[in-house]
Amino acid sequence: MREPKPQASAGASGPSRPRVAVLAVGTELLDPARTDANGARVLAALRAKGFAASFLGRVADDEEAIAAALQAALRSAEAVVCSGGLGPTGDDRTREGAAQLLGRRVVTDGGWLRVLEGRLAQRGRALDAVNRRQALIVEGAEVLPNDHGLACGCLLRERGRFLFLLPGVPAEFREMFEKSVLPRLVEAFPGLPPVRTVRAVVAGLPEAAAEKTLLPWYRRPGVAVSILPHLGVLEITLTLDGGSEEELSLREGEVREALAGGYGRHLVSLDGVSLEEALGRALLERGWTVAVAESLTAGTVAQKIVSVPGASRYFLGGLSAYANEAKVRLLGVPPSTLERFGAVSEETVRAMVRGARARFGAACAVATTGVAGPTGGTEEKPPGTFWVAAATPEGEWARRLYLPLDRASVMEFAAHTALFDLWSRVRGER
Amino acid sequence: MREPKPQASAGASGPSRPRVAVLAVGTELLDPARTDANGARVLAALRAKGFAASFLGRVADDEEAIAAALQAALRSAEAVVCSGGLGPTGDDRTREGAAQLLGRRVVTDGGWLRVLEGRLAQRGRALDAVNRRQALIVEGAEVLPNDHGLACGCLLRERGRFLFLLPGVPAEFREMFEKSVLPRLVEAFPGLPPVRTVRAVVAGLPEAAAEKTLLPWYRRPGVAVSILPHLGVLEITLTLDGGSEEELSLREGEVREALAGGYGRHLVSLDGVSLEEALGRALLERGWTVAVAESLTAGTVAQKIVSVPGASRYFLGGLSAYANEAKVRLLGVPPSTLERFGAVSEETVRAMVRGARARFGAACAVATTGVAGPTGGTEEKPPGTFWVAAATPEGEWARRLYLPLDRASVMEFAAHTALFDLWSRVRGER
Repeated sequence: MREPKPQASAGASGPSRPRVAVLAVGTELLDPARTDANGARVLAALRAKGFAASFLGRVADDEEAIAAALQAALRSAEAVVCSGGLGPTGDDRTREGAAQLLGRRVVTDGGWLRVLEGRLAQRGRALDAVNRRQALIVEGAEVLPNDHGLACGCLLRERGRFLFLLPGVPAEFREMFEKSVLPRLVEAFPGLPPVRTVRAVVAGLPEAAAEKTLLPWYRRPGVAVSILPHLGVLEITLTLDGGSEEELSLREGEVREALAGGYGRHLVSLDGVSLEEALGRALLERGWTVAVAESLTAGTVAQKIVSVPGASRYFLGGLSAYANEAKVRLLGVPPSTLERFGAVSEETVRAMVRGARARFGAACAVATTGVAGPTGGTEEKPPGTFWVAAATPEGEWARRLYLPLDRASVMEFAAHTALFDLWSRVRGER
Repeated sequence: MREPKPQASAGASGPSRPRVAVLAVGTELLDPARTDANGARVLAALRAKGFAASFLGRVADDEEAIAAALQAALRSAEAVVCSGGLGPTGDDRTREGAAQLLGRRVVTDGGWLRVLEGRLAQRGRALDAVNRRQALIVEGAEVLPNDHGLACGCLLRERGRFLFLLPGVPAEFREMFEKSVLPRLVEAFPGLPPVRTVRAVVAGLPEAAAEKTLLPWYRRPGVAVSILPHLGVLEITLTLDGGSEEELSLREGEVREALAGGYGRHLVSLDGVSLEEALGRALLERGWTVAVAESLTAGTVAQKIVSVPGASRYFLGGLSAYANEAKVRLLGVPPSTLERFGAVSEETVRAMVRGARARFGAACAVATTGVAGPTGGTEEKPPGTFWVAAATPEGEWARRLYLPLDRASVMEFAAHTALFDLWSRVRGER
């Protein structure tokens, strides 16, 4: 009855791959706005080694809830990495939760207790009752040393499955994961079938249009597709598995060809290179410099360009001309143009892009103007209406777009559109 | 043996509050970079009603794993809201996972089947085997209607606990949560003790320094503290519970007073108002306009200023003067200053801030220059070194800072520092 999964995650899928589950303990983490850097690290590292992800959770500092969450994690995966709740205070309950689940006791590890005594003595301090808690382990656990902190980690084996308990402090977690977790898991699951990943960046194409090229791949076995949309830019990841290195190479070639053919001039890269980086490379290749004139996006385009290390080799600068006065005085937009056509018009955006080239003495320029909203629109130019213009030594182009979303989204979409249009022109697309 | 939790989450804590657990089903969600908007919505809405959060999870499209994760959620909370995995394809396994856990069967709901038939008939389509799956429910469930999609939701009761299964499509989830979940839970848990929240925004203070003011609150019962650091800006949330409305009002007043006293001129707001918004309000109050001159941060400061709706009332524009040539030509920085002191110097940043005021005709200005890295530094000015300057009709100020982090972090920290310095000066701080 069960069909194969057509949309497995960016990680590899299939029953042949060991699965990994990740759990973070801490009431303060039950805020979706908080990122779980430890969990992200584990999943990225283990997926690259051929593991699949099955569970990603956060649980409050409550013994019962921790035990239940660990049980869910252990049922869904061959390896569980749990972070947090090993500190010295009473609300650190991870050991107790694990012990409850496994029917074991929490005991003091004599070896780690001596390490603690030694470290505290170096600081001229004696071991008190609070710090003694950091030498507690679940009975039968292998102690995982912690070079940067006082709480030791635990490795528990349960019916062939691995349960790692590590401290949540990122620096401690990172080191212990690299040193004690990753090598053990790689050794425990040798000869994992290879995985290949193609990370495509696509710009200037709506998500629905981009889906068309992906449709045949959703149904192909051994291919997992994921799309992350970013308002005018899409990150598309295809993960390939289920074959020898040679077969995967062939399949990877097929995927690359299909994406290149399907996305054409919208394909920024097949290796995760961003639109900003691609623009920088294209400019360097032609030996051209760039300047920007922004009204609507006020700095967003410039900020994206300089996010690339070494941008100073081609980025001369930008003008955020929010007030009409600034458009006239600093960019040389004729007052008559503003009066006759308005600030949000083809004539104004073209005057802006010319002004930016001239004032900065740049080979290329890009300009934006529009109504970000939520106020300031008219029936003819509602919030979300904007113009972008791009200019190179080979010509000048402008177009009008419309995105009926919130202020921040309109700005982001306009900035990506401007970068895409300029990049296309610098590469010689017409 | 168990001590009270000193650092409960932003939600309320304490045994008197019903707990809520959230689970998202979908292999594609096992990417920590993806946000779970459905889960965030549930937690925010229920915390405001006095619930506490106990568990937040994501699980792959695997029946066994779903059953285990639902079990963990049900053990940790009085109410579980699960999203996703109710679609028509074979990899949608949430109903099956829930049925397995509860020892029930999956059956077709005749009522919803007729709704589906009617909807598809309107589109001129017949009900096929694939779509029939969307009328499946766990035996004994109450059907929750879905006005925007084809899959119905389920409400299951298990030993007094609530288990809601909703589709994952955000528009469908949102509407069903508001209509079918929230009212039922509010009704089921009447008379929840009140909660108060103080959301402080603090700028220009390192996290460690900000902690000092918070220390007494960590140990106070009925107070939960959370800090979200953003490179130069801190969001601090204190959630108060465990008392009558009157007692909470008193305690809230005490918290506000303590934070105001402890943070002094670093306190941007006690109600979540951001640094950018506070700067805008201060400028409007004094009737001043502002312009920016950015080298290091190239557009980041301008972009933050215009992120506030209505910024066009005080923001005239900005110049990203990345190349020295642009600093000279467009901002009027004397070439001799650049030659003698370099682009990253007090003299240059002061010349930039003056240039911005003059060129834009603005009452106030702010300027940044520095080495973002990873290359381009010297021993004297390593990457992460920067200067900011602020100017108002009442004076001009400049200072040097250093943050040895990555390029993006240096830019973000410098932009926040510049905004904080300007805001302080506009308010008349010296």
